[in-house]
Amino acid sequence: MVNVSFSQALQALVELGRQYLERPTAGSDIEKFASRCRDLVSLLGEASGTALASEIVDRYLDLPSDRRLEALARLDRDFAPDAAGISDAARKFLSSPTQESYRDLAIAMETPRLELFRRLNMAPGGTAAIVNMRRLLLPRMRGTPELQGLEYDLKHLLSSWFNRGFLQFERIDWRTPAIVLEKLIAYEAVHEIGGWDDLRRRLAEDRRCFAFFHPALPDEPLIFVEVALTHGLAARIHDLIEAPFDGAADDKPGTAIFYSISNCQEGLAGISFGNFLIKQVVDALQTELPHVAQFATLSPVPGFRNWLDGLADEDLPHQILEDARKVPDGGDWCGDDTARERLRPILTRLCATYLLTAKRGNRPADPVARFHLGNGASIERINWEADLSTRGIEQSFGIMVNYLYDPGRIVSNHEAFAVDGRIAASSAVSRLAADHHGR
Amino acid sequence: MVNVSFSQALQALVELGRQYLERPTAGSDIEKFASRCRDLVSLLGEASGTALASEIVDRYLDLPSDRRLEALARLDRDFAPDAAGISDAARKFLSSPTQESYRDLAIAMETPRLELFRRLNMAPGGTAAIVNMRRLLLPRMRGTPELQGLEYDLKHLLSSWFNRGFLQFERIDWRTPAIVLEKLIAYEAVHEIGGWDDLRRRLAEDRRCFAFFHPALPDEPLIFVEVALTHGLAARIHDLIEAPFDGAADDKPGTAIFYSISNCQEGLAGISFGNFLIKQVVDALQTELPHVAQFATLSPVPGFRNWLDGLADEDLPHQILEDARKVPDGGDWCGDDTARERLRPILTRLCATYLLTAKRGNRPADPVARFHLGNGASIERINWEADLSTRGIEQSFGIMVNYLYDPGRIVSNHEAFAVDGRIAASSAVSRLAADHHGR
Amino acid sequence: MVNVSFSQALQALVELGRQYLERPTAGSDIEKFASRCRDLVSLLGEASGTALASEIVDRYLDLPSDRRLEALARLDRDFAPDAAGISDAARKFLSSPTQESYRDLAIAMETPRLELFRRLNMAPGGTAAIVNMRRLLLPRMRGTPELQGLEYDLKHLLSSWFNRGFLQFERIDWRTPAIVLEKLIAYEAVHEIGGWDDLRRRLAEDRRCFAFFHPALPDEPLIFVEVALTHGLAARIHDLIEAPFDGAADDKPGTAIFYSISNCQEGLAGISFGNFLIKQVVDALQTELPHVAQFATLSPVPGFRNWLDGLADEDLPHQILEDARKVPDGGDWCGDDTARERLRPILTRLCATYLLTAKRGNRPADPVARFHLGNGASIERINWEADLSTRGIEQSFGIMVNYLYDPGRIVSNHEAFAVDGRIAASSAVSRLAADHHGR
Amino acid sequence: MVNVSFSQALQALVELGRQYLERPTAGSDIEKFASRCRDLVSLLGEASGTALASEIVDRYLDLPSDRRLEALARLDRDFAPDAAGISDAARKFLSSPTQESYRDLAIAMETPRLELFRRLNMAPGGTAAIVNMRRLLLPRMRGTPELQGLEYDLKHLLSSWFNRGFLQFERIDWRTPAIVLEKLIAYEAVHEIGGWDDLRRRLAEDRRCFAFFHPALPDEPLIFVEVALTHGLAARIHDLIEAPFDGAADDKPGTAIFYSISNCQEGLAGISFGNFLIKQVVDALQTELPHVAQFATLSPVPGFRNWLDGLADEDLPHQILEDARKVPDGGDWCGDDTARERLRPILTRLCATYLLTAKRGNRPADPVARFHLGNGASIERINWEADLSTRGIEQSFGIMVNYLYDPGRIVSNHEAFAVDGRIAASSAVSRLAADHHGR
Repeated sequence: MVNVSFSQALQALVELGRQYLERPTAGSDIEKFASRCRDLVSLLGEASGTALASEIVDRYLDLPSDRRLEALARLDRDFAPDAAGISDAARKFLSSPTQESYRDLAIAMETPRLELFRRLNMAPGGTAAIVNMRRLLLPRMRGTPELQGLEYDLKHLLSSWFNRGFLQFERIDWRTPAIVLEKLIAYEAVHEIGGWDDLRRRLAEDRRCFAFFHPALPDEPLIFVEVALTHGLAARIHDLIEAPFDGAADDKPGTAIFYSISNCQEGLAGISFGNFLIKQVVDALQTELPHVAQFATLSPVPGFRNWLDGLADEDLPHQILEDARKVPDGGDWCGDDTARERLRPILTRLCATYLLTAKRGNRPADPVARFHLGNGASIERINWEADLSTRGIEQSFGIMVNYLYDPGRIVSNHEAFAVDGRIAASSAVSRLAADHHGR
Repeated sequence: MVNVSFSQALQALVELGRQYLERPTAGSDIEKFASRCRDLVSLLGEASGTALASEIVDRYLDLPSDRRLEALARLDRDFAPDAAGISDAARKFLSSPTQESYRDLAIAMETPRLELFRRLNMAPGGTAAIVNMRRLLLPRMRGTPELQGLEYDLKHLLSSWFNRGFLQFERIDWRTPAIVLEKLIAYEAVHEIGGWDDLRRRLAEDRRCFAFFHPALPDEPLIFVEVALTHGLAARIHDLIEAPFDGAADDKPGTAIFYSISNCQEGLAGISFGNFLIKQVVDALQTELPHVAQFATLSPVPGFRNWLDGLADEDLPHQILEDARKVPDGGDWCGDDTARERLRPILTRLCATYLLTAKRGNRPADPVARFHLGNGASIERINWEADLSTRGIEQSFGIMVNYLYDPGRIVSNHEAFAVDGRIAASSAVSRLAADHHGR
Repeated sequence: MVNVSFSQALQALVELGRQYLERPTAGSDIEKFASRCRDLVSLLGEASGTALASEIVDRYLDLPSDRRLEALARLDRDFAPDAAGISDAARKFLSSPTQESYRDLAIAMETPRLELFRRLNMAPGGTAAIVNMRRLLLPRMRGTPELQGLEYDLKHLLSSWFNRGFLQFERIDWRTPAIVLEKLIAYEAVHEIGGWDDLRRRLAEDRRCFAFFHPALPDEPLIFVEVALTHGLAARIHDLIEAPFDGAADDKPGTAIFYSISNCQEGLAGISFGNFLIKQVVDALQTELPHVAQFATLSPVPGFRNWLDGLADEDLPHQILEDARKVPDGGDWCGDDTARERLRPILTRLCATYLLTAKRGNRPADPVARFHLGNGASIERINWEADLSTRGIEQSFGIMVNYLYDPGRIVSNHEAFAVDGRIAASSAVSRLAADHHGR
Repeated sequence: MVNVSFSQALQALVELGRQYLERPTAGSDIEKFASRCRDLVSLLGEASGTALASEIVDRYLDLPSDRRLEALARLDRDFAPDAAGISDAARKFLSSPTQESYRDLAIAMETPRLELFRRLNMAPGGTAAIVNMRRLLLPRMRGTPELQGLEYDLKHLLSSWFNRGFLQFERIDWRTPAIVLEKLIAYEAVHEIGGWDDLRRRLAEDRRCFAFFHPALPDEPLIFVEVALTHGLAARIHDLIEAPFDGAADDKPGTAIFYSISNCQEGLAGISFGNFLIKQVVDALQTELPHVAQFATLSPVPGFRNWLDGLADEDLPHQILEDARKVPDGGDWCGDDTARERLRPILTRLCATYLLTAKRGNRPADPVARFHLGNGASIERINWEADLSTRGIEQSFGIMVNYLYDPGRIVSNHEAFAVDGRIAASSAVSRLAADHHGR
């Protein structure tokens, strides 16, 4: 299909429309911004929509970042829901809850804000601007409850737009455009990418990288996962991150290790794609590499030390508390071979207990465990001296965990976990924890 | 970017998931369909989402079309909004209309149906299935008011998904895949395309065709417009439709005639793209062909004869009624040169009056006039003997109209029309109508 | 990679160059054509190459086809090899056949014609024009020996350009651009395609079509093969060509039948791609459809009746001549069940003998047999009443043959055939022929 | 068009073929290599061509680089032209130089080497391997005259394959795949690219980069040119190379400066694309940026100091020699303001004289001048203190030159230069040189 370059065409449309927009607007920059937004949801918006939306997006992006929040607050006020209209419709629904009164209430609930954002989305870069608005709002939610409605509307809209059915699953490799690759360097959240050479190694023949994209943000990965093809479960992150690629990848690896998964768009926080991505990657690898039979992660245990530090106050089996007392405070033991060997059984045992029993509500306290177990994975192995970086030592005494994604058990694991809170674990890990209880 | 074929990957994911779905379901096909839908919005849906969504879509498509409506009615009931929950939230909002109570009401209003459709959208072909569900519902809305809520939810969802910002503007020509081209033949609503040879002529070098697509329906145009490049305003549709292409298109045409615009997806009725498309085409043509300076339509006048037939009863200036009385009932005059010449001034005058004065509410009675005037066009010329097909004679005595899209006036025309109902027309057309009033 | 549209850029380059070409040229159109060609290989050609090449191609294409041959003859004379220079170099080589004298002779042999064609290739459409020049020449070769050198140069050049390594192997289906699909309808040489509906059936889910393309002729297949996916060897061509597609293709076919292979470019005659294409298709199908285990053709036997008609004069085993005498001349027996049944064993036996023993030189007399056996196929089965079209009856009494491409035997079959002329055949076919000899 | 991934398909074809290649080959690696090559041009090659070609390419690439030359020498011997056959044909041609004897001689001249390379080209990576073979040969040509014939054949073949008509003109920017971008860093020959950050700056919005590609080497630019968009002629290379991009590029630049042009493939030396590339870039920029009206280079003068150093011996106007005597030997004057100011008029005058009068044969002695003047450019301006790098000072005392590509004069400049050796120069530059002669 001969493709009239979309962005070029949009840009030209914007140019065309600018001429219609030569109306003077008085007042401050935020005043002008708000005035243009009113134009957009008015009659004028129908005729010169794209140009007007584009002007508004530009005005917003031209604001210094501290004033953007002010602009959003202004939008919130100017395009707030119509409380009187909602109240009327709510009363009618209460007196007669029919299909019709439901529908009328739904229409009354449609805030002018939503219509404004829908029209802003016509601008080139509109979707990106809206994602960025939410990114700005999210960290301020605690201090500014009056923006909750606005944030709710944005999340509602973005959830709808970024429906899983619209996401594009793509492999990322050294043939990917540089404009996308530089985002990987910027967004890698777990194990920092040190630059283009490091990136290239992570995209070598014995590695895989996959991401979700949305058609409206073609150069922006939403989430990406890095995979190493190995022989057997990987036990140390540095073997994956720093191992040079020897150029020969012809022997057939049997294991795929998911060693990093990074969300890229803060403005899409809470709209989760991660579980879909992992399942899709398992599937893509099974198709491409039939000899890969084992799918597992090499994951951090970010909450382990914090949990240990807080143990003293808890009512727990005395073996646990006893073990916990043997763990020194700092990291000096790292350099001491004897200390390390003495701590190894204690800490791996404690870690198994942490993963299998520590809860927030009725779900695992550890956020990484929560994510993978919720996806249907099981706890396969606890690896000692797996991450000797400062952060690794601080968070979890250098321990990392392999979560196993067994295609034949994902569904049953997921359900047992979701319904009963049951955590799937290998017998080795279960036994480690059992030492703390059954003895 | 190396693109792991998305549909292939999705298909494989579906295969993978099928194994998890081997649970027996008792009861009728609709019973099973509803049961699977309940699974999808439950915990199970999180783990085997794509496979489950795909099974549901298949089950739906396998139903005979008369039972599909039954299935939808079942969905409507099983996933209806929670009246009690809404009532509670509505009461709280009425007693204290804050950001928080607004938000809680909005959450209560989120029907299970919406969540179901959002998850169905994960299936390959999910979006298409949902569009088709609304297509099935729409013609039954009058007889089944109890489905209004469902239809409202579907329209709400589809409006959000098919936001203008996500549509892709593409040129269609002889390099377009056949799977898209055959849709043009199927969907052309105004001037039927007689087959591949006819289609090819409409895509020749002196013609243009543009369409909007959505990424989730890559082979399905949403709306398309056909354009002829001419020297001056075209006065007869058959000169455009039937003129053979002479192979030489090197002299520079100055006019672009939009001679057909067709909506393709009945399931998206009421979610309008037409005005955006015309503006984008004007722009694309200005970029590609700087020598084209005039943009106009050659449009039918579908309501003209109906209006004339109902005139007798109305209280109108006597010149109009007098003219109207001179118009014979059938179409016999067509073959009679003298009759034609006699009727020509009478009918063109009446048509001008119809377009400029006949109203439904405060907008033009003629639907085509309503569309183009609402977009900012003006009535440029009334063409006698412009469409001599049976339908053309029946609807409008063979008259067609050129609506002019003057890039410099689109916005002002639109606003005058939207705010004051003022209709922009050339002096020639205005004078024709004036004969009926000012004399 | 952002792709500056190549043909657009070339076109613009041509426009740019045209201004430099305003030199008047006197004389006839062919005179002007030849004069421009001289400019192109001169100094001027270096600076305004693309524009000049493009003008020459246009001039050539504007000639009526009977004058194009005249133009080529003119080129042949004006850009003939330099006999004196070649003679000098030849003499030097004869007196001292060194690397250097070889090289100098090679340089002397480089005809101005070759340089001219290499420069013409810069024009948009240049490659296509050169292919068409050879297409024009080929059928005239017998009558005009003086054009042999020109034809040789063209073939030499095109062989180099259309090297197998540069061909692109592509699947053709209903997503292929119409501009390519219409070529299939035009070029299908074996079993005519009746129009777009027929074409669509041949591209349905239970069919495959593959072609070679060259980057310089993006809309022109060079050769394509049509494949039917079946259960077991197909015995009748009409079952493949006319069978409607029932929409369900989910049971896994085990056999791929190559039922038509068509060369598209007469100007590339003698530059063969067919054997490469078949092998590549076998491979592509093995990858896509692992359940397909058998690859075979359903092929005509174009030389069978001709051979039979000429048999009387040959010195052959009497059983053959006896059988041959039993075959009636016309096609009347077709409608007579008894005659058909009587002829069946006789004709299948004769056909086996024809395929296995009739030779032209030391290779099979039948051109289709020559092609497939030369590729490493074996004769698997002779099918009675396989092609009841007029042509089928006339050529081969309705008989068609399955040639088998067994991936494990292609190489050994090919070598036995190439070295010793040994023909691979199934025992059934061998036995049929043996009846004529061994009895 | 659904594209069966070509390289994947080829790879699979290769795998398929490997099984046929299990014949033991005795002897050294080069022996085996040569033996496989003989297989390839033999009957075996027809059936298992791609697999065999691929094996040969792999064998070649596996050789240590010093033994590759040995392998090539072996090829040269084993596949040498048939001197006896050529001699026969040469004698026939001499006795009767007809179309037929020409053709027969041409056929005899076709060396087995050529056929071997044509078949090698079927392998994945075949074209690249052949380009690399010539790259290996070229620097050894002086020492090994016996390889001249081989080198000639390779050049002949590559010239044909890399015909301008098959090259793809592409823009390179930050959306280009990383695998291509890293080649720019590797191949930039004029002004080294310091890494990815430097590269990104050279691809910013106020820069352009264009390259030629060949379909058989999709990830390898053949030649690329870097362009800066400026206001007026650029006078200093460091202003272009080191200027940070300020992010705002909205004011319309009027000049395009070609500041670097790099050939990438040593194996294609002598097969020139540079002049085509520059003309195509001029055209692409005129289309994209109509406001750019001036096209010029900022080029080094690599032969200037060498020429000056050799002047003493030449018979030249005394003003030149006098000026030349005033030029100090080293680079100490660089740091001395007075010295610099004193040398400026002397050196610019000498440089003008060098460019306009110094010859090698009848063409300019300076290789850069030769290239641009041969393309139809003119000498526009001599820039003092334009390149203060060590190399800039050493080669040309820091002087650089703007060559002007005036679209309206390219052809006439080219012809005057080619026919009469006349050099186009601005009056300012001509006057500078005239000071040395006319006074």
